[in-house]
Amino acid sequence: MKIIEGYKLLHRNNYTEYQNNLNVRVIDVQGIKIGGNTPVIIAGPCAVQSYEQTIEIAKAVKKAGANLLRGGAFKPRTSPYEFQGLGKEGLEILRQAKNITGLPIVTEVLDPRLVDMVYEYADIFQIGSRNMYNIPLLKEVARTQKPVILKRSMSAGLQEWLCLAEYIALEGNLDIILCERGIRTFPCKEYSRNTLDLNILLPLREKTFLPIIVDPSHATGDAKIVPFASLASIQFNINGLLIEVIKEDDNVEDILCDAVQGIKPSDLDKIVKKINYLYK
Amino acid sequence: MKIIEGYKLLHRNNYTEYQNNLNVRVIDVQGIKIGGNTPVIIAGPCAVQSYEQTIEIAKAVKKAGANLLRGGAFKPRTSPYEFQGLGKEGLEILRQAKNITGLPIVTEVLDPRLVDMVYEYADIFQIGSRNMYNIPLLKEVARTQKPVILKRSMSAGLQEWLCLAEYIALEGNLDIILCERGIRTFPCKEYSRNTLDLNILLPLREKTFLPIIVDPSHATGDAKIVPFASLASIQFNINGLLIEVIKEDDNVEDILCDAVQGIKPSDLDKIVKKINYLYK
Amino acid sequence: MKIIEGYKLLHRNNYTEYQNNLNVRVIDVQGIKIGGNTPVIIAGPCAVQSYEQTIEIAKAVKKAGANLLRGGAFKPRTSPYEFQGLGKEGLEILRQAKNITGLPIVTEVLDPRLVDMVYEYADIFQIGSRNMYNIPLLKEVARTQKPVILKRSMSAGLQEWLCLAEYIALEGNLDIILCERGIRTFPCKEYSRNTLDLNILLPLREKTFLPIIVDPSHATGDAKIVPFASLASIQFNINGLLIEVIKEDDNVEDILCDAVQGIKPSDLDKIVKKINYLYK
Amino acid sequence: MKIIEGYKLLHRNNYTEYQNNLNVRVIDVQGIKIGGNTPVIIAGPCAVQSYEQTIEIAKAVKKAGANLLRGGAFKPRTSPYEFQGLGKEGLEILRQAKNITGLPIVTEVLDPRLVDMVYEYADIFQIGSRNMYNIPLLKEVARTQKPVILKRSMSAGLQEWLCLAEYIALEGNLDIILCERGIRTFPCKEYSRNTLDLNILLPLREKTFLPIIVDPSHATGDAKIVPFASLASIQFNINGLLIEVIKEDDNVEDILCDAVQGIKPSDLDKIVKKINYLYK
Repeated sequence: MKIIEGYKLLHRNNYTEYQNNLNVRVIDVQGIKIGGNTPVIIAGPCAVQSYEQTIEIAKAVKKAGANLLRGGAFKPRTSPYEFQGLGKEGLEILRQAKNITGLPIVTEVLDPRLVDMVYEYADIFQIGSRNMYNIPLLKEVARTQKPVILKRSMSAGLQEWLCLAEYIALEGNLDIILCERGIRTFPCKEYSRNTLDLNILLPLREKTFLPIIVDPSHATGDAKIVPFASLASIQFNINGLLIEVIKEDDNVEDILCDAVQGIKPSDLDKIVKKINYLYK
Repeated sequence: MKIIEGYKLLHRNNYTEYQNNLNVRVIDVQGIKIGGNTPVIIAGPCAVQSYEQTIEIAKAVKKAGANLLRGGAFKPRTSPYEFQGLGKEGLEILRQAKNITGLPIVTEVLDPRLVDMVYEYADIFQIGSRNMYNIPLLKEVARTQKPVILKRSMSAGLQEWLCLAEYIALEGNLDIILCERGIRTFPCKEYSRNTLDLNILLPLREKTFLPIIVDPSHATGDAKIVPFASLASIQFNINGLLIEVIKEDDNVEDILCDAVQGIKPSDLDKIVKKINYLYK
Repeated sequence: MKIIEGYKLLHRNNYTEYQNNLNVRVIDVQGIKIGGNTPVIIAGPCAVQSYEQTIEIAKAVKKAGANLLRGGAFKPRTSPYEFQGLGKEGLEILRQAKNITGLPIVTEVLDPRLVDMVYEYADIFQIGSRNMYNIPLLKEVARTQKPVILKRSMSAGLQEWLCLAEYIALEGNLDIILCERGIRTFPCKEYSRNTLDLNILLPLREKTFLPIIVDPSHATGDAKIVPFASLASIQFNINGLLIEVIKEDDNVEDILCDAVQGIKPSDLDKIVKKINYLYK
Repeated sequence: MKIIEGYKLLHRNNYTEYQNNLNVRVIDVQGIKIGGNTPVIIAGPCAVQSYEQTIEIAKAVKKAGANLLRGGAFKPRTSPYEFQGLGKEGLEILRQAKNITGLPIVTEVLDPRLVDMVYEYADIFQIGSRNMYNIPLLKEVARTQKPVILKRSMSAGLQEWLCLAEYIALEGNLDIILCERGIRTFPCKEYSRNTLDLNILLPLREKTFLPIIVDPSHATGDAKIVPFASLASIQFNINGLLIEVIKEDDNVEDILCDAVQGIKPSDLDKIVKKINYLYK
């Protein structure tokens, strides 16, 4: 095997089963197949704020058809004066949400020293956009051999993204899910938070066999655009969506993180129904 | 009526029939309704190269379900050493293609002094991305009262785009179709020519009643991505697609303009069938 | 001579006197040498608003050490409801300013049909950033054989810019001055209007022998930054600066175009003194 | 004190001595005053490769007038197959270089678990562009109360950058030096690695009293541009430069990191002389 374009363990060309096709490696998380025949829906609150909020949303996304529950206990907020997450208490709430709904947990880890703690609660680690270049964190997470979602940095190109994912692969962990979540471009902030970059999806698929998902919540920053962006992304044969959901009756001012981009469970329900229709 | 955000004739808020809804103005081009219930397909060669090439593609896109024929007789090429289009001869070929297929013609005009000439052949004027800021051209085209596609500049924000469109509206011509065709961002050239910006579509729809279409050919620059980008765009309830098509058996080296982004008629056929399925 | 990178008449490699050096072609405008030993200062109002305003500024920039007078009679404004310039009346005022101060005139032309008219007044044509891709305008201006400033489009790379300049060269006119004026990037509008891109200056100089100037007014959009940006640009051995100047006692609300980026004559005086000190 | 724009400890308005002026906090590092009357020069190899290489460069930059020595023992490389630094061995070499030259050491830390180790060797911690959003690292470094250079992320705006710096300030450490090092924009890779963004410097100075430096090596990625970019940056009254230096007789192929952007000691000498001339 040669090093091609800065990475090799993740390059199709180095695997007979992935060469000359667009096959995807299937990652099985408690029976949920990421990279299988249908896209998975990962949904939940941006941040775990309380037991009540999390359980209500968890039940609602389960009912709407989500396959996994997302929720942040550690939040890398731009300003230190913003809500930073409940930490271990948030992880405990997520565990209870899993016990009640049966949904496996996707949650972010920010600090290599907390990987072992988060490991006890997460079914899939999330490495956020702002940590894509955080090599010590990548290695520490990889070492656990648990599946990991690696979000694209808002400033990363395709090759850069795969090179960083290769750090995970080199620890013997190929259970990596790549997540497009929007890039930083000139019109950002005029009408959307980031620019959803669907153009990368096919070239990425051609380079690597890893499952690819899209986060339409961060890629748009606007709950009204999320349903459209979700369905648009699905057209690229991606393997899943990562969507932020608020309570059906939430007041924007009660939401401590990214309030304007969370959709309601009833909207998630519609998205899932449309995806099911496309995949029936 | 007040001037809102630099434009007023194009702002929903100034029309009772467009306020508080997402209604679209219907532009009728020889019975083809742009802004009607189903998206229109505008397809054809990037540049008119010859009678044979144009007629073959025109027949093929007609058969595949296209509603209008696109083709450039005047091409604003980056280098003066590239093919610049056949000029009036190209327009004559387009007329013959229309006579044979019945498809109305969409063609670009670059020079205000040639608007009257192009007027004789075009059913819809196209103003290209590189001319979005060309105010004398906008005014001259507008003056003819013929419908016009105004492509977004690769460096334009939402408000800027609408302000430039307002120059057309001020000449008494509201038959304007806005066309998203990709923006210039940092990953351009690594894996796609431009970045398709779907995030703008809903905010744009909320601001104005003009029909909105997407050009997936320029927005991606890669024929393999075009079918995915086409279907993705359609999810945003746009009013049409503008797609570059090559001959079924074309050799890339025989194509004088943007060879790698033109799709084959058989691929257009599949796109149209999928759209029809969604809109049935 | 071969076509190198899409252009050839402007490539150093095709001229023995410009190969393997960084020599610059000198353009003589009524005794002012652009590309000579010292950078030229082109200063004046954004838009010609009145006789009084223009003459006052012209005298002031002359006194401050400017070599040429800039001023717009035709303004390509984003919104049609903004001041569009005085047109021919503005050109007449510029002529009077030249008669009084002796400063040659730099003024923009937007419309190929008005090139002959503007020719009568301009000593150097300016083609604005929004018209860099306007090929009919480039050709029409070039045909007159009068010197032309070609501003970089806010979305243009290096090669693209030179390819468009080559359209002018192909009309037999090598009296082209390239003007960097800022590009469109993600932080635009947070703290500056555009991003001044000094990194392009040396690579551009290595490719071509054309004089290169910088417009710090548009590149920053902020009068407070202009003096710093001017001196910074000068460090790259450029051939001149194009600076917008307001009246010493102007009220921002009386200025009809780009009020916040115009500096006062007393500030221009300081910039010129510092440049003279560097070049003494 | 109020929270203004997401940060407060770093906002001028909250300090009587920094309000309504552009005063800079002086950080004293073993007698070197960062934020004092003259800009400091921080120079050295991108990566510490060997004792011989580091000592030679350290002596050379000292001789050329540098005030501090930079050198990376831990390198966050895009590809895991690239040289990752010598780690602790590299730190030992830096200590010896300090012993020989007397230059205080600036070196990067990537991992919060290694902060205590790096603390023993560094006089100033460097937090790289790819770690600007790495909050656990920021806090851990801040906790030591040692001065820290916080490089701007290639995707960060002004406010974002200051908000992240505020995490350091909240640990009681105001000895923060902000370092502009280029942003990711559309022309990157055509002619420069990043886009040096000088426009941010004055607005940044107006917001905060922290010393500001520029890294022309990463901001350009091209040794030929570095001297120009250095002098240009100095025009903005910044407090220092961070420059990568190679050996006078280095072969590009022997350099394990960022070979094309390191300048020779003789070039550094010229830069320092020109700066001294400006500040005499």
